[in-house]
Amino acid sequence: MDIEEMLLDLKKKIESKLPNDTTISTVEFEGPQLVVYTEEPRKFADNGNIIRTLAKDLRTRIVVRPDPKVLVPPEESMDKIGNIVPEEAATSNYHFDPDVGEVIIEAEKPGLVIGKQGDTLREITKEIGWTPKVVRTPPIKSRTVKNIREFMRNNHKERKDILKSVGRQIHRETTTKDQWVRITSLGGCKEVGRSCFILSTPESRVMIDCGVNIGSDENMTPYLYVPEAYPLSQLDAVILTHAHLDHSGFIPLLYKYGYQGPVYCTLPTRDLSALLQLDYIDVAGKEGRIVPYESSQVREALKHTITLDFEEVTDIAPDIKLTFHNSGHILGSAIAHFHIGDGLHNVVFTGDYKYGSTRLFDPAVNKFPRVETVVTESTYGSSNAVQPTLKDAEKHLQQVIINTLQKDGIVLIPAFAVGRSQEVMIVLEDAIRKGLIDDVPIYLDGMIWEATAIHATYPEYLNNELRKSIFQKGQNPFLSDSFKPVDSNELRQKIIDEPHPCVILATAGMMNAGPILEYFKAFASNENNTLVFVGYQADGTLGRRIQKGWKEIPMSSSVNGGTQTINVNMNVEVVDGFSGHSDRKQLMDFVKKMKPRPERVYTEHGEEKFCIDLASSIYKKNKIETRALTNLETIRLV
Amino acid sequence: MDIEEMLLDLKKKIESKLPNDTTISTVEFEGPQLVVYTEEPRKFADNGNIIRTLAKDLRTRIVVRPDPKVLVPPEESMDKIGNIVPEEAATSNYHFDPDVGEVIIEAEKPGLVIGKQGDTLREITKEIGWTPKVVRTPPIKSRTVKNIREFMRNNHKERKDILKSVGRQIHRETTTKDQWVRITSLGGCKEVGRSCFILSTPESRVMIDCGVNIGSDENMTPYLYVPEAYPLSQLDAVILTHAHLDHSGFIPLLYKYGYQGPVYCTLPTRDLSALLQLDYIDVAGKEGRIVPYESSQVREALKHTITLDFEEVTDIAPDIKLTFHNSGHILGSAIAHFHIGDGLHNVVFTGDYKYGSTRLFDPAVNKFPRVETVVTESTYGSSNAVQPTLKDAEKHLQQVIINTLQKDGIVLIPAFAVGRSQEVMIVLEDAIRKGLIDDVPIYLDGMIWEATAIHATYPEYLNNELRKSIFQKGQNPFLSDSFKPVDSNELRQKIIDEPHPCVILATAGMMNAGPILEYFKAFASNENNTLVFVGYQADGTLGRRIQKGWKEIPMSSSVNGGTQTINVNMNVEVVDGFSGHSDRKQLMDFVKKMKPRPERVYTEHGEEKFCIDLASSIYKKNKIETRALTNLETIRLV
Repeated sequence: MDIEEMLLDLKKKIESKLPNDTTISTVEFEGPQLVVYTEEPRKFADNGNIIRTLAKDLRTRIVVRPDPKVLVPPEESMDKIGNIVPEEAATSNYHFDPDVGEVIIEAEKPGLVIGKQGDTLREITKEIGWTPKVVRTPPIKSRTVKNIREFMRNNHKERKDILKSVGRQIHRETTTKDQWVRITSLGGCKEVGRSCFILSTPESRVMIDCGVNIGSDENMTPYLYVPEAYPLSQLDAVILTHAHLDHSGFIPLLYKYGYQGPVYCTLPTRDLSALLQLDYIDVAGKEGRIVPYESSQVREALKHTITLDFEEVTDIAPDIKLTFHNSGHILGSAIAHFHIGDGLHNVVFTGDYKYGSTRLFDPAVNKFPRVETVVTESTYGSSNAVQPTLKDAEKHLQQVIINTLQKDGIVLIPAFAVGRSQEVMIVLEDAIRKGLIDDVPIYLDGMIWEATAIHATYPEYLNNELRKSIFQKGQNPFLSDSFKPVDSNELRQKIIDEPHPCVILATAGMMNAGPILEYFKAFASNENNTLVFVGYQADGTLGRRIQKGWKEIPMSSSVNGGTQTINVNMNVEVVDGFSGHSDRKQLMDFVKKMKPRPERVYTEHGEEKFCIDLASSIYKKNKIETRALTNLETIRLV
Repeated sequence: MDIEEMLLDLKKKIESKLPNDTTISTVEFEGPQLVVYTEEPRKFADNGNIIRTLAKDLRTRIVVRPDPKVLVPPEESMDKIGNIVPEEAATSNYHFDPDVGEVIIEAEKPGLVIGKQGDTLREITKEIGWTPKVVRTPPIKSRTVKNIREFMRNNHKERKDILKSVGRQIHRETTTKDQWVRITSLGGCKEVGRSCFILSTPESRVMIDCGVNIGSDENMTPYLYVPEAYPLSQLDAVILTHAHLDHSGFIPLLYKYGYQGPVYCTLPTRDLSALLQLDYIDVAGKEGRIVPYESSQVREALKHTITLDFEEVTDIAPDIKLTFHNSGHILGSAIAHFHIGDGLHNVVFTGDYKYGSTRLFDPAVNKFPRVETVVTESTYGSSNAVQPTLKDAEKHLQQVIINTLQKDGIVLIPAFAVGRSQEVMIVLEDAIRKGLIDDVPIYLDGMIWEATAIHATYPEYLNNELRKSIFQKGQNPFLSDSFKPVDSNELRQKIIDEPHPCVILATAGMMNAGPILEYFKAFASNENNTLVFVGYQADGTLGRRIQKGWKEIPMSSSVNGGTQTINVNMNVEVVDGFSGHSDRKQLMDFVKKMKPRPERVYTEHGEEKFCIDLASSIYKKNKIETRALTNLETIRLV
């Protein structure tokens, strides 16, 4: 059956299930969704269950869109929306797209526009014809979110074509009789950086992550040129588990090399990865290093991105269904579950995950409808990689801050923009609110504030407690007055010129670049100040040298471009335990408590000996097949 | 450096090493050889060491060819050759090819045309300018050998173009900095049939064997469509270890699917595989089964075949050198040794092998200059797969024949055309010559006689003892008067109509088709006759049923096309031990005594439990990494 016949067939099926007097104009695949166009959107809206029942029956995702001729004009529509939606929702922007009959409504409280089980949305549709889509007005202004939303709106037509083509690819006819499932490792095995896998069947080929190894020029790129991956035009889909560059960094490169298909990820991952990718090529260019792609390719990737919610089962190829689950690592980070064939096999790629509660996120999900194969990260896979508990880490950090502030000193914290910074921010906000530390200003410099703004835009992805605090108590810790974004050179200079007790979080996390260096130069000589490391410092970085105890650091002068020697008199403290990764015990527990019990576990994303150690320990504990994967292998699962 | 520069460079290097007065016109790659064209072929011939020294210095194979203008006309040349070559050589045909300046001389005793270390050949060149190539006049007329030789001569021009293109491919410039070696299993793992592997590096991709699984319609073909193999046009070379269809059967198919490169094998493998391939599609057509390719594709494969001698190191890709070693399995069967990169890795594919002496062949070679990885067959890999010794098997067979002949009975032996038949023939000839069994006629029906003719054409590939017997004592057992080829329906009918004490060897080996059935129908009812199985009988074949003890066999009647019931009153005997495969002990010894000791061993070509059993036993005995390969895996060696 070709695709046109299939659509005709679906149209008939849908019509047969609708109440007698309801008609539809046409049906079309757009991305993984089946779109039903109708001149009677109000009737669909009237009966909230129609769509849900249809989707269940047809085993696909369905959206209903109005035929353009039944739409109420925008001006009039806005008035009507204003009448329906309660004032407290605080709607701000409306964007009408007649091509798809959608109106995008920005609101500070999207829940109030949606209503109970979507009641308010349906009411809007009934009144104006348009299909409303609600997005949150970023409570902190985010350049990234604003730009991406604008970009998506401006490219709506092209995007519709892309989605249509993706939809037809997903629902193409299948031909092969053979049944097998393979995974190919293109990077990130027995190493950290350039994570990249191919999952393939006789019908389909999808890529999971495509990261850059920033620490290495030689082994920077995944082995994209091997035949299992190349030509990239033959990939059905790219799945991005989370925004960190060792998973997302080379996704734009795929579009340079001929890939034209979709990228599936969560909404926060889309925004965070664009932010990090643009920063990556920007910094590389400034430092005279290889710039592997242009910003136009980041935009190309955005145009092709299809965002999915957690727990949403989605067809991404004729024989592959993808479901994202919370992985607890950073905002929007996901575990990717693939259901292959008609129950043939289920494989889980964990990406990076935290199997434990943190200030920001719920623990990683390890319950699935079915799972036979697990590919797990191993960052802390070594049997002696013990980490302090988060509680101890927090106490430790508090004490360091208290000690420093008692001496009227400054606390300087180098931090990664995404993940660690927000965790520390929440800890500090909580401590200040509870009066555990003085209410000093907390300066945020580098990309930290922008990343925080993205966190504030998507509170749905934070943990239960934070969501409750934000939605029910109206307390958003990210909006605390204690946080002072350093949004100008003047402010930074002022902080430096007029030292006062404060906490400064600044990038880069390993002190190899970024504004942290300016603060360090200014404050290193004063023994009342403290430098606090909350993250891993790699070999060869300034952070590592200072950790090792270097007391005289030669640095380029910010004044005349010459070299100056910085004397390190400030305290240097290392606070372990703020990791977004599972520690050894959590890695072991994640597998042990997984439901159902998997048949085999492959380890990756860790130093070689850690991956081997973890594989061997999981085997011994659980008596299931395990192996540490090697780059460039192709393994058969079925 | 591009290829033209490289050739110019080589020309200069060669000239600098020649005596002052020797000039060359041009140099060109043809297949893996470097061809030096000269107007002074006599000077090269004068100095036998020049070529050898040059080849060593340039690390490549070199042949010298005369410029056409210096060639003595054919008629005159033939006279001169006649004067140089001793009468006993018995030269018969001369074929002059002015394009390459070669004259192909057929002789009954090629050694006498070659002379000590090629002395006579050089003398011929000096006299006539032409480069002589000697081939053996088949002592038994072989349609196959005759047709192939004619075909190769008739397509000499096209072949020259093919060789030139192959040569340039082999010597192309390389670009990649990455270093890795991978093998992909496309068939023949945890099963017997459709053997097929890919060996790949960042530069090159070669296929080892491409067999058909005759026993299965569903799993008949190797997984040629996976990206490691497809598109086939990207393969650099195909290596064929031996002629049996489970290794050679789908090589012509490669040309149907777009492959255009060379096939490397030994000379006997070329002829035997063409014979078997043509028979395969012929029989498949007659039986109404799938005919996967045409005879034109068998010819295409022949045109692209480059034959190599044992122990001849040959460049087959920019970074891969191939050396064949005797594997002792069937005529021309080889172990393929690959040297990759500049000492990066060495991998041995055993193909099928016998690590033990047989009547026909020397034991398989297991000493190599270097070897890290071994991929070994596992046909008898099970720890309880014990086979009688060849000596015991021979005695058993003799006794069965003696007993039958005593009763004036007929001995009927179903046998595969290539391998088992010739082994049994030699056993019978020896027994008759020594008076151990009566000198009754031994009828050979089906393809056996043609396959035997090919054996007789290439005695260089038989074992030491046979070679000595043939070359020094002038006794070729294949030429024994006891052997009576059944070359007409009349003769077959006569044997059936006038039963007399005799031995009949006939195909097919498992009695699923072929002339064996006619004899069986005729002789089954007589209790004085004996049916002797000397080979494996697969499930579902008539042979297996009779082995199991079936006494009434329904068969289609040869007279009226109806069904008749055959009563099996004849004796049924099973004589084990005539295997061209290593038994369990030989498999274990092959690895244990291998020099140097390999780092890892992968098992394939055997039932699943046999492959696993062998891998596990080799690990336990030798403490080296082992694994039973699975179809569709890609494993990284370096």
